Amino acid sequence: MAESAAARPVLAVDLGGTKIATALITPQGEVLSREYSPTLAEEGVDAVIGRILAIGSALLRGARLPYTSLSGIAIAAAGAIDSQKGIVTDSPNLPGWHNIPLKAEIEKATGTRTFVINDATAAALGEHRFGAGRGVNNLIYLTVSTGIGGGIIIDGKLYSGVSGSAGELGHMTIDLNGPRCACGNIGCLEVMASGKAVAREAQRLIAHGARTVILDLAEGDAQYVTAQTVATAAHKGDQVALSIVDRAATYLGVGMVNLVNIFNPEMIIVGGGMGKMGEMLLKPARRVVAERAFRFPASVVRIVSSELGDNSGVFGAVAFVADADRPL
Amino acid sequence: MAESAAARPVLAVDLGGTKIATALITPQGEVLSREYSPTLAEEGVDAVIGRILAIGSALLRGARLPYTSLSGIAIAAAGAIDSQKGIVTDSPNLPGWHNIPLKAEIEKATGTRTFVINDATAAALGEHRFGAGRGVNNLIYLTVSTGIGGGIIIDGKLYSGVSGSAGELGHMTIDLNGPRCACGNIGCLEVMASGKAVAREAQRLIAHGARTVILDLAEGDAQYVTAQTVATAAHKGDQVALSIVDRAATYLGVGMVNLVNIFNPEMIIVGGGMGKMGEMLLKPARRVVAERAFRFPASVVRIVSSELGDNSGVFGAVAFVADADRPL
Repeated sequence: MAESAAARPVLAVDLGGTKIATALITPQGEVLSREYSPTLAEEGVDAVIGRILAIGSALLRGARLPYTSLSGIAIAAAGAIDSQKGIVTDSPNLPGWHNIPLKAEIEKATGTRTFVINDATAAALGEHRFGAGRGVNNLIYLTVSTGIGGGIIIDGKLYSGVSGSAGELGHMTIDLNGPRCACGNIGCLEVMASGKAVAREAQRLIAHGARTVILDLAEGDAQYVTAQTVATAAHKGDQVALSIVDRAATYLGVGMVNLVNIFNPEMIIVGGGMGKMGEMLLKPARRVVAERAFRFPASVVRIVSSELGDNSGVFGAVAFVADADRPL
Repeated sequence: MAESAAARPVLAVDLGGTKIATALITPQGEVLSREYSPTLAEEGVDAVIGRILAIGSALLRGARLPYTSLSGIAIAAAGAIDSQKGIVTDSPNLPGWHNIPLKAEIEKATGTRTFVINDATAAALGEHRFGAGRGVNNLIYLTVSTGIGGGIIIDGKLYSGVSGSAGELGHMTIDLNGPRCACGNIGCLEVMASGKAVAREAQRLIAHGARTVILDLAEGDAQYVTAQTVATAAHKGDQVALSIVDRAATYLGVGMVNLVNIFNPEMIIVGGGMGKMGEMLLKPARRVVAERAFRFPASVVRIVSSELGDNSGVFGAVAFVADADRPL
């Protein structure tokens, strides 16, 4: 069973707040087919689950494969996931998703074993197996997006803690006297360096009359300013935008200092929407690590961009199923 | 070889800034004999190494055992240790110890394989194998002493990072705008919550005219105030001392929140000199974890005192040698 399962494709789903990415992928990482769909979470939990099932079935029909040909289904979802039970405990990006037994629902409908994992965890695994972290046995993955999440690979395996919720790297306090984070804690990395933090800082500066093209790029309405708007302005050389990005990158660097001193990792991989800023974000962060972390671990860590980008989640889902069949 | 070595005793050494604890211990944790000696680091590196060798030889003679009967020698030392090479890279508590090839020196003199590890790392392993963390496979050990160090046990094994320097848990930034730490970073847990921080805060308050028995306990000279003085005053119900301890405990709790969110550990064990304050330190720290960490990992973690106290280092040294013979 384990032998044959290892060769069969996985139906991998990345369930995000705005879109669902679904792909049929071999354990070797070959994409047989893929599909994107809007999530439309406002239609309710059942509608979203129905959409996942419909897309999955369509992909299998297109590939002329029955559900029984799969080694499994794996769904990466944002938020607090009870991975052992396959329950979406809470998801900030999926309103109404509280204690949803997603694994049980999908298994009932498909007769196929199903795994549910945190999306940042999946992305870490995806980068480790198929992306920037290939061959790297100790790495930290940081997704810097609307929020900040993370995943930890130790000795080539996902580290998930005693009850499956390890890796909340965006929720380290780095500023005791900082702003309150959505998680209830104070001065978390997320509230200082995430996309939301960048947009908020831009809005604050605009409200104080800063001279910047950011507002023009948001059609003159500060409400529409996002981290993406700030990134675009920064690429155009806008000084206000550049300073906002540099500030967030500095905070991100402080978070990395903590991770370097704690984990002495071989690599830190940065993904997520903000991660697409690339060197504009990584360069100042690396400088902070060089200045503040312990010399020895700082000298070995490589801080790099995600290779898989938006696909790290589905690839991680595939790796997760493959690992379930691997003898420990 | 591995079989027979597993049954032989270990010569375990805890090399501290003020004293050297040496013990002959079986792999099962039975102490055959032990000896304490002052370190007298000011006499220089060679004198200290000579002292370690003299005590070790005396213990072996007393037990009528030759060096060849040992499964190994293990030395736990404070500071930055290159454990793979057995070099004391830097040790704040051992002046003059820079890049000292301690393993090579001891092996040359004794003909016995020798391991050198960080003392907090050793303590983590000691508590895991013989103390509060027996049977707990995912735990974090925090030594709260003059400084703050740590050790990480994952899947029942010491996690030491890609180059052996993981676990610098005292050097997480928790206050971006905080004081500069001895390590060069800013607002580290260590500079906020260590014994040194407690003593410094007491001295500051005394200088500002605070009414407290702390000064009396230090023979009227603020220079002599230590964390121990503050602890004694707190036990007597001194309000200033209690508030200093509560403040440090709160900062320690913030550090624990980070560890809980990152590691989702089963247990956090607190040792070191300040750790001896017990519940006076742990109770406020637990409250902060309950208030600020993610609900799910906060509900599973047990935050407890070290069981081995000052002996965690030598017991950890024994476990380290035993692990070296264990097939992975």
